[in-house]
Amino acid sequence: MELHYPNGKKYVPANKETIGKKREKKWSYSNRGMTLEEDINETNVYYLEHGIACIHKKPTPVQIVGVDYPKRSAAVIKEAYFKQASTTDYNGVYKGKYIDFEAKETQNISSFPLKNFHEHQVKHMEMVLQQKGICFVLLRFSSIEEIYLLEAKHLLIFWNRMKEGGRKSITRDEIIKNGHYIPLGLHPRIDYINMIEKLYPFD
Amino acid sequence: MELHYPNGKKYVPANKETIGKKREKKWSYSNRGMTLEEDINETNVYYLEHGIACIHKKPTPVQIVGVDYPKRSAAVIKEAYFKQASTTDYNGVYKGKYIDFEAKETQNISSFPLKNFHEHQVKHMEMVLQQKGICFVLLRFSSIEEIYLLEAKHLLIFWNRMKEGGRKSITRDEIIKNGHYIPLGLHPRIDYINMIEKLYPFD
Repeated sequence: MELHYPNGKKYVPANKETIGKKREKKWSYSNRGMTLEEDINETNVYYLEHGIACIHKKPTPVQIVGVDYPKRSAAVIKEAYFKQASTTDYNGVYKGKYIDFEAKETQNISSFPLKNFHEHQVKHMEMVLQQKGICFVLLRFSSIEEIYLLEAKHLLIFWNRMKEGGRKSITRDEIIKNGHYIPLGLHPRIDYINMIEKLYPFD
Repeated sequence: MELHYPNGKKYVPANKETIGKKREKKWSYSNRGMTLEEDINETNVYYLEHGIACIHKKPTPVQIVGVDYPKRSAAVIKEAYFKQASTTDYNGVYKGKYIDFEAKETQNISSFPLKNFHEHQVKHMEMVLQQKGICFVLLRFSSIEEIYLLEAKHLLIFWNRMKEGGRKSITRDEIIKNGHYIPLGLHPRIDYINMIEKLYPFD
Protein backbone atom coordinates (compact mmCIF):
# COMPACT_ATOMS: atom_id res chain seq x y z
CA MET A 1 0.00 0.00 0.00
CA GLU A 2 1.32 3.39 -0.97
CA LEU A 3 0.83 6.24 1.46
CA HIS A 4 1.05 9.91 0.61
CA TYR A 5 1.48 13.10 2.56
CA PRO A 6 -1.19 15.78 2.23
CA ASN A 7 1.04 17.45 -0.36
CA GLY A 8 0.97 14.31 -2.48
CA LYS A 9 4.55 13.28 -1.69
CA LYS A 10 5.06 9.58 -1.25
CA TYR A 11 5.34 8.52 2.39
CA VAL A 12 8.43 6.37 2.83
CA PRO A 13 8.42 4.71 6.24
CA ALA A 14 11.77 4.27 7.94
CA ASN A 15 12.67 0.64 7.64
CA LYS A 16 13.93 -0.66 10.95
CA GLU A 17 15.00 -3.96 9.51
CA THR A 18 17.51 -2.39 7.15
CA ILE A 19 19.16 -0.15 9.71
CA GLY A 20 22.36 -1.55 11.08
CA LYS A 21 22.36 -4.52 8.71
CA LYS A 22 25.05 -5.14 6.18
CA ARG A 23 23.81 -4.82 2.62
CA GLU A 24 24.43 -7.63 0.21
CA LYS A 25 22.94 -5.96 -2.83
CA LYS A 26 25.13 -4.47 -5.51
CA TRP A 27 24.04 -1.00 -6.54
CA SER A 28 24.39 0.23 -10.05
CA TYR A 29 24.88 3.85 -11.00
CA SER A 30 21.75 3.72 -13.12
CA ASN A 31 18.72 5.51 -11.85
CA ARG A 32 17.00 2.92 -9.72
CA GLY A 33 14.05 5.15 -9.03
CA MET A 34 15.11 5.63 -5.42
CA THR A 35 13.90 8.77 -3.76
CA LEU A 36 16.30 11.32 -2.38
CA GLU A 37 15.19 10.27 1.09
CA GLU A 38 16.05 6.65 0.45
CA ASP A 39 19.48 7.61 -0.90
CA ILE A 40 20.17 9.76 2.15
CA ASN A 41 19.02 7.07 4.54
CA GLU A 42 21.39 4.66 2.79
CA THR A 43 24.16 7.19 3.11
CA ASN A 44 23.50 7.73 6.81
CA VAL A 45 23.53 3.99 7.46
CA TYR A 46 26.87 3.82 5.66
CA TYR A 47 28.26 6.66 7.80
CA LEU A 48 26.99 4.99 10.96
CA GLU A 49 28.36 1.54 10.09
CA HIS A 50 31.75 2.97 9.18
CA GLY A 51 31.97 5.27 12.20
CA ILE A 52 32.13 8.32 9.94
CA ALA A 53 29.18 10.29 11.32
CA CYS A 54 26.05 9.74 13.38
CA ILE A 55 23.18 11.36 11.51
CA HIS A 56 19.51 10.37 11.58
CA LYS A 57 16.25 11.38 9.98
CA LYS A 58 13.73 12.61 12.49
CA PRO A 59 10.47 10.67 12.65
CA THR A 60 7.49 12.13 10.79
CA PRO A 61 5.66 14.34 13.28
CA VAL A 62 2.19 13.05 13.96
CA GLN A 63 -0.57 14.47 16.14
CA ILE A 64 -2.11 11.48 17.88
CA VAL A 65 -5.79 11.84 18.70
CA GLY A 66 -7.13 8.36 19.39
CA VAL A 67 -5.47 5.16 20.60
CA ASP A 68 -6.92 1.71 21.24
CA TYR A 69 -5.43 -0.62 23.80
CA PRO A 70 -6.51 -4.11 22.78
CA LYS A 71 -5.91 -6.75 25.44
CA ARG A 72 -2.69 -8.70 25.04
CA SER A 73 -1.51 -6.75 22.01
CA ALA A 74 0.20 -3.51 21.09
CA ALA A 75 -1.56 -0.16 21.32
CA VAL A 76 -3.13 0.84 18.00
CA ILE A 77 -3.30 4.47 16.94
CA LYS A 78 -6.77 4.88 15.44
CA GLU A 79 -6.80 8.59 14.67
CA ALA A 80 -3.82 10.80 13.99
CA TYR A 81 -2.82 13.60 11.64
CA PHE A 82 0.36 14.66 9.92
CA LYS A 83 1.84 17.77 11.51
CA GLN A 84 4.14 20.30 9.94
CA ALA A 85 7.69 19.77 11.18
CA SER A 86 9.12 22.62 13.24
CA THR A 87 12.69 21.73 12.31
CA THR A 88 14.58 20.21 9.41
CA ASP A 89 14.44 16.47 8.81
CA TYR A 90 18.03 15.41 9.41
CA ASN A 91 20.51 16.12 12.14
CA GLY A 92 23.40 14.58 13.97
CA VAL A 93 27.06 14.80 14.81
CA TYR A 94 30.30 14.73 12.84
CA LYS A 95 33.61 15.17 14.69
CA GLY A 96 31.81 16.88 17.56
CA LYS A 97 30.11 19.40 15.29
CA TYR A 98 26.37 19.72 14.95
CA ILE A 99 25.10 18.88 11.44
CA ASP A 100 21.60 19.88 10.34
CA PHE A 101 19.99 19.69 6.94
CA GLU A 102 16.89 19.37 4.84
CA ALA A 103 16.64 17.47 1.56
CA LYS A 104 14.30 18.36 -1.28
CA GLU A 105 13.87 17.37 -4.88
CA THR A 106 12.20 18.91 -7.90
CA GLN A 107 11.22 17.74 -11.37
CA ASN A 108 12.12 21.21 -12.69
CA ILE A 109 15.27 21.55 -14.74
CA SER A 110 16.25 25.20 -14.63
CA SER A 111 15.21 26.32 -11.15
CA PHE A 112 14.41 25.08 -7.65
CA PRO A 113 11.07 26.30 -6.23
CA LEU A 114 11.34 27.77 -2.73
CA LYS A 115 7.88 26.48 -1.87
CA ASN A 116 9.69 23.24 -1.04
CA PHE A 117 10.64 24.89 2.25
CA HIS A 118 8.37 26.40 4.82
CA GLU A 119 8.78 29.30 7.19
CA HIS A 120 9.32 27.12 10.29
CA GLN A 121 12.19 25.28 8.69
CA VAL A 122 13.93 28.42 7.52
CA LYS A 123 13.51 29.93 11.00
CA HIS A 124 15.06 26.78 12.42
CA MET A 125 18.02 27.06 10.05
CA GLU A 126 18.60 30.60 11.27
CA MET A 127 18.65 29.38 14.88
CA VAL A 128 21.13 26.65 13.99
CA LEU A 129 23.44 29.14 12.27
CA GLN A 130 23.16 31.47 15.27
CA GLN A 131 24.37 28.53 17.41
CA LYS A 132 27.26 27.96 14.96
CA GLY A 133 25.87 24.64 13.75
CA ILE A 134 26.61 23.40 10.24
CA CYS A 135 23.41 23.80 8.29
CA PHE A 136 22.59 23.19 4.64
CA VAL A 137 20.11 21.80 2.16
CA LEU A 138 20.55 18.99 -0.32
CA LEU A 139 18.78 19.92 -3.55
CA ARG A 140 18.12 17.29 -6.17
CA PHE A 141 17.07 17.97 -9.72
CA SER A 142 15.58 14.53 -10.19
CA SER A 143 14.96 14.68 -13.94
CA ILE A 144 18.60 15.50 -14.70
CA GLU A 145 19.93 13.55 -11.69
CA GLU A 146 22.00 16.37 -10.17
CA ILE A 147 22.43 16.93 -6.45
CA TYR A 148 23.81 20.09 -4.88
CA LEU A 149 24.69 21.00 -1.33
CA LEU A 150 23.70 24.60 -0.67
CA GLU A 151 24.70 26.08 2.66
CA ALA A 152 21.85 27.58 4.71
CA LYS A 153 23.50 31.00 4.65
CA HIS A 154 22.96 31.04 0.86
CA LEU A 155 19.47 29.62 1.03
CA LEU A 156 18.55 32.44 3.43
CA ILE A 157 19.63 35.03 0.87
CA PHE A 158 17.35 33.54 -1.79
CA TRP A 159 14.56 33.09 0.75
CA ASN A 160 14.77 36.73 1.79
CA ARG A 161 14.85 37.82 -1.86
CA MET A 162 11.50 36.06 -2.24
CA LYS A 163 10.13 37.64 0.95
CA GLU A 164 11.04 41.02 -0.47
CA GLY A 165 8.99 40.31 -3.59
CA GLY A 166 11.67 38.67 -5.71
CA ARG A 167 11.52 35.38 -7.57
CA LYS A 168 10.01 32.35 -5.84
CA SER A 169 12.79 30.01 -6.84
CA ILE A 170 16.55 29.66 -7.06
CA THR A 171 17.85 29.28 -10.59
CA ARG A 172 20.04 26.29 -11.33
CA ASP A 173 22.80 28.70 -12.31
CA GLU A 174 22.62 30.34 -8.89
CA ILE A 175 22.79 26.93 -7.26
CA ILE A 176 25.81 25.97 -9.38
CA LYS A 177 27.50 29.25 -8.45
CA ASN A 178 26.74 29.20 -4.70
CA GLY A 179 26.33 25.50 -4.03
CA HIS A 180 28.45 22.40 -4.41
CA TYR A 181 27.77 19.54 -6.77
CA ILE A 182 27.65 16.13 -5.09
CA PRO A 183 28.28 13.30 -7.52
CA LEU A 184 26.19 10.15 -7.01
CA GLY A 185 28.30 7.36 -5.60
CA LEU A 186 28.06 3.70 -4.79
CA HIS A 187 29.02 3.64 -1.12
CA PRO A 188 27.88 6.03 0.12
CA ARG A 189 25.28 7.20 -2.38
CA ILE A 190 25.38 10.93 -1.56
CA ASP A 191 28.64 11.73 0.18
CA TYR A 192 27.71 15.08 1.70
CA ILE A 193 30.09 14.61 4.64
CA ASN A 194 32.99 14.59 2.18
CA MET A 195 31.84 18.05 1.04
CA ILE A 196 31.36 19.27 4.61
CA GLU A 197 34.89 18.16 5.38
CA LYS A 198 36.14 20.34 2.49
CA LEU A 199 34.00 23.35 3.43
CA TYR A 200 34.63 23.54 7.17
CA PRO A 201 37.83 23.50 9.12
CA PHE A 202 38.00 20.55 11.49
CA ASP A 203 40.64 19.45 13.95
CA MET B 1 -8.46 12.52 26.61
CA GLU B 2 -5.33 11.01 28.11
CA LEU B 3 -3.19 8.80 25.90
CA HIS B 4 -0.60 6.33 27.09
CA TYR B 5 2.33 4.56 25.55
CA PRO B 6 2.36 0.77 25.61
CA ASN B 7 4.56 0.98 28.72
CA GLY B 8 1.88 2.98 30.52
CA LYS B 9 3.74 6.31 30.29
CA LYS B 10 1.56 9.29 29.63
CA TYR B 11 1.70 10.51 26.03
CA VAL B 12 2.32 14.24 25.97
CA PRO B 13 1.81 15.67 22.49
CA ALA B 14 4.16 18.42 21.42
CA ASN B 15 2.13 21.59 21.51
CA LYS B 16 2.82 23.65 18.41
CA GLU B 17 0.88 26.62 19.72
CA THR B 18 3.15 27.08 22.73
CA ILE B 19 6.40 26.92 20.79
CA GLY B 20 7.82 30.28 20.01
CA LYS B 21 5.18 32.13 22.04
CA LYS B 22 5.97 34.17 25.07
CA ARG B 23 4.59 32.71 28.26
CA GLU B 24 2.43 34.84 30.47
CA LYS B 25 2.02 32.33 33.27
CA LYS B 26 3.96 32.68 36.48
CA TRP B 27 5.52 29.45 37.64
CA SER B 28 5.93 28.56 41.25
CA TYR B 29 8.63 26.32 42.66
CA SER B 30 6.01 24.01 44.13
CA ASN B 31 5.54 20.68 42.44
CA ARG B 32 2.96 21.39 39.78
CA GLY B 33 2.75 17.78 38.74
CA MET B 34 4.56 18.51 35.49
CA THR B 35 6.31 15.63 33.89
CA LEU B 36 10.04 15.70 33.27
CA GLU B 37 9.25 15.94 29.56
CA GLU B 38 7.11 19.03 30.04
CA ASP B 39 9.80 20.67 32.15
CA ILE B 40 12.44 19.94 29.52
CA ASN B 41 10.23 21.20 26.71
CA GLU B 42 9.71 24.44 28.68
CA THR B 43 13.44 24.67 29.16
CA ASN B 44 14.15 24.15 25.46
CA VAL B 45 11.64 26.84 24.49
CA TYR B 46 13.37 29.17 26.94
CA TYR B 47 16.76 28.37 25.40
CA LEU B 48 15.38 28.92 21.91
CA GLU B 49 13.64 32.23 22.73
CA HIS B 50 16.75 33.56 24.44
CA GLY B 51 19.16 32.39 21.76
CA ILE B 52 20.99 30.17 24.26
CA ALA B 53 20.72 26.84 22.46
CA CYS B 54 18.67 25.16 19.77
CA ILE B 55 17.51 21.81 21.15
CA HIS B 56 14.36 19.90 20.24
CA LYS B 57 12.58 16.73 21.22
CA LYS B 58 12.28 14.30 18.35
CA PRO B 59 8.75 13.33 17.33
CA THR B 60 7.42 10.03 18.67
CA PRO B 61 8.29 7.39 16.07
CA VAL B 62 5.16 5.87 14.61
CA GLN B 63 4.77 3.12 12.03
CA ILE B 64 1.95 4.25 9.77
CA VAL B 65 -0.11 1.43 8.25
CA GLY B 66 -3.35 2.97 7.02
CA VAL B 67 -4.28 6.48 5.90
CA ASP B 68 -7.59 7.91 4.72
CA TYR B 69 -7.74 10.83 2.30
CA PRO B 70 -11.16 12.40 2.80
CA LYS B 71 -12.10 14.90 0.11
CA ARG B 72 -11.39 18.52 0.99
CA SER B 73 -9.83 17.74 4.36
CA ALA B 74 -6.56 16.60 5.85
CA ALA B 75 -5.29 13.04 5.55
CA VAL B 76 -6.30 10.94 8.56
CA ILE B 77 -4.04 8.21 9.85
CA LYS B 78 -6.38 5.32 10.66
CA GLU B 79 -3.92 2.65 11.72
CA ALA B 80 -0.48 3.17 13.19
CA TYR B 81 1.74 1.72 15.90
CA PHE B 82 4.28 3.11 18.31
CA LYS B 83 7.82 2.14 17.32
CA GLN B 84 10.84 1.86 19.53
CA ALA B 85 13.09 4.87 19.03
CA SER B 86 16.50 4.11 17.56
CA THR B 87 18.07 7.18 19.13
CA THR B 88 17.64 9.34 22.20
CA ASP B 89 14.74 11.78 22.45
CA TYR B 90 16.54 15.13 22.50
CA ASN B 91 19.26 16.66 20.41
CA GLY B 92 20.45 19.95 19.07
CA VAL B 93 23.24 22.48 19.04
CA TYR B 94 24.95 24.67 21.62
CA LYS B 95 27.86 26.87 20.53
CA GLY B 96 28.46 24.68 17.50
CA LYS B 97 28.65 21.51 19.58
CA TYR B 98 26.31 18.59 19.18
CA ILE B 99 24.15 17.96 22.26
CA ASP B 100 22.30 14.69 22.70
CA PHE B 101 20.40 13.35 25.68
CA GLU B 102 17.67 11.18 27.05
CA ALA B 103 15.46 12.04 30.04
CA LYS B 104 13.95 9.50 32.39
CA GLU B 105 12.21 9.54 35.72
CA THR B 106 11.59 7.01 38.47
CA GLN B 107 9.37 6.81 41.54
CA ASN B 108 12.17 4.94 43.31
CA ILE B 109 14.09 6.77 46.00
CA SER B 110 17.38 4.96 46.40
CA SER B 111 18.20 3.74 42.91
CA PHE B 112 17.50 4.34 39.22
CA PRO B 113 16.43 1.22 37.25
CA LEU B 114 18.39 0.71 34.04
CA LYS B 115 15.33 -0.81 32.36
CA ASN B 116 14.39 2.83 31.64
CA PHE B 117 16.88 2.65 28.78
CA HIS B 118 16.98 0.21 25.95
CA GLU B 119 19.82 -1.30 23.97
CA HIS B 120 19.25 0.89 20.89
CA GLN B 121 19.53 4.07 22.87
CA VAL B 122 22.69 3.01 24.64
CA LYS B 123 24.19 1.98 21.31
CA HIS B 124 23.28 5.40 19.94
CA MET B 125 24.98 7.11 22.89
CA GLU B 126 28.15 5.15 22.13
CA MET B 127 28.05 6.37 18.53
CA VAL B 128 27.57 9.96 19.66
CA LEU B 129 30.54 9.72 22.02
CA GLN B 130 32.61 8.18 19.25
CA GLN B 131 31.79 11.27 17.15
CA LYS B 132 32.83 13.51 20.07
CA GLY B 133 29.27 14.72 20.70
CA ILE B 134 28.15 15.80 24.16
CA CYS B 135 25.88 13.06 25.43
CA PHE B 136 24.18 12.58 28.78
CA VAL B 137 21.00 11.53 30.55
CA LEU B 138 18.78 13.59 32.81
CA LEU B 139 17.58 11.40 35.66
CA ARG B 140 14.72 12.52 37.85
CA PHE B 141 13.78 10.98 41.16
CA SER B 142 10.23 12.26 41.00
CA SER B 143 9.15 11.40 44.54
CA ILE B 144 12.01 13.35 46.11
CA GLU B 145 12.14 15.91 43.26
CA GLU B 146 15.83 15.55 42.49
CA ILE B 147 17.30 15.81 38.99
CA TYR B 148 20.79 14.75 38.00
CA LEU B 149 22.76 15.06 34.83
CA LEU B 150 24.81 11.91 34.29
CA GLU B 151 27.22 11.89 31.38
CA ALA B 152 26.81 9.01 28.94
CA LYS B 153 30.35 7.80 29.63
CA HIS B 154 29.24 7.06 33.21
CA LEU B 155 25.90 5.55 32.21
CA LEU B 156 27.80 3.16 29.92
CA ILE B 157 29.85 1.91 32.86
CA PHE B 158 26.71 1.08 34.85
CA TRP B 159 25.06 -0.39 31.76
CA ASN B 160 28.00 -2.67 31.12
CA ARG B 161 28.10 -3.69 34.78
CA MET B 162 24.50 -4.88 34.32
CA LYS B 163 25.37 -6.69 31.07
CA GLU B 164 28.11 -8.52 32.94
CA GLY B 165 25.62 -9.77 35.48
CA GLY B 166 25.79 -6.90 37.95
CA ARG B 167 22.95 -4.87 39.47
CA LYS B 168 20.13 -3.70 37.20
CA SER B 169 20.11 -0.17 38.53
CA ILE B 170 22.35 2.73 39.49
CA THR B 171 22.21 3.61 43.17
CA ARG B 172 21.36 7.18 44.08
CA ASP B 173 24.74 7.38 45.82
CA GLU B 174 26.50 6.43 42.59
CA ILE B 175 24.51 9.07 40.72
CA ILE B 176 25.40 11.70 43.32
CA LYS B 177 29.06 10.71 43.06
CA ASN B 178 29.31 10.55 39.25
CA GLY B 179 26.51 12.89 38.19
CA HIS B 180 25.65 16.53 38.71
CA TYR B 181 22.66 17.81 40.65
CA ILE B 182 20.50 20.23 38.66
CA PRO B 183 18.39 22.45 40.91
CA LEU B 184 14.85 23.18 39.70
CA GLY B 185 14.55 26.75 38.52
CA LEU B 186 11.90 29.16 37.35
CA HIS B 187 13.28 30.21 33.98
CA PRO B 188 14.50 27.87 32.75
CA ARG B 189 13.09 24.97 34.76
CA ILE B 190 15.98 22.53 34.29
CA ASP B 191 19.09 24.46 33.36
CA TYR B 192 21.17 21.61 31.96
CA ILE B 193 23.04 23.89 29.55
CA ASN B 194 24.46 25.76 32.54
CA MET B 195 25.92 22.44 33.73
CA ILE B 196 27.21 21.57 30.25
CA GLU B 197 28.94 24.93 30.14
CA LYS B 198 30.72 24.03 33.40
CA LEU B 199 31.64 20.51 32.30
CA TYR B 200 32.96 21.16 28.79
CA PRO B 201 35.52 23.62 27.55
CA PHE B 202 34.01 26.01 25.01
CA ASP B 203 35.51 28.87 23.06
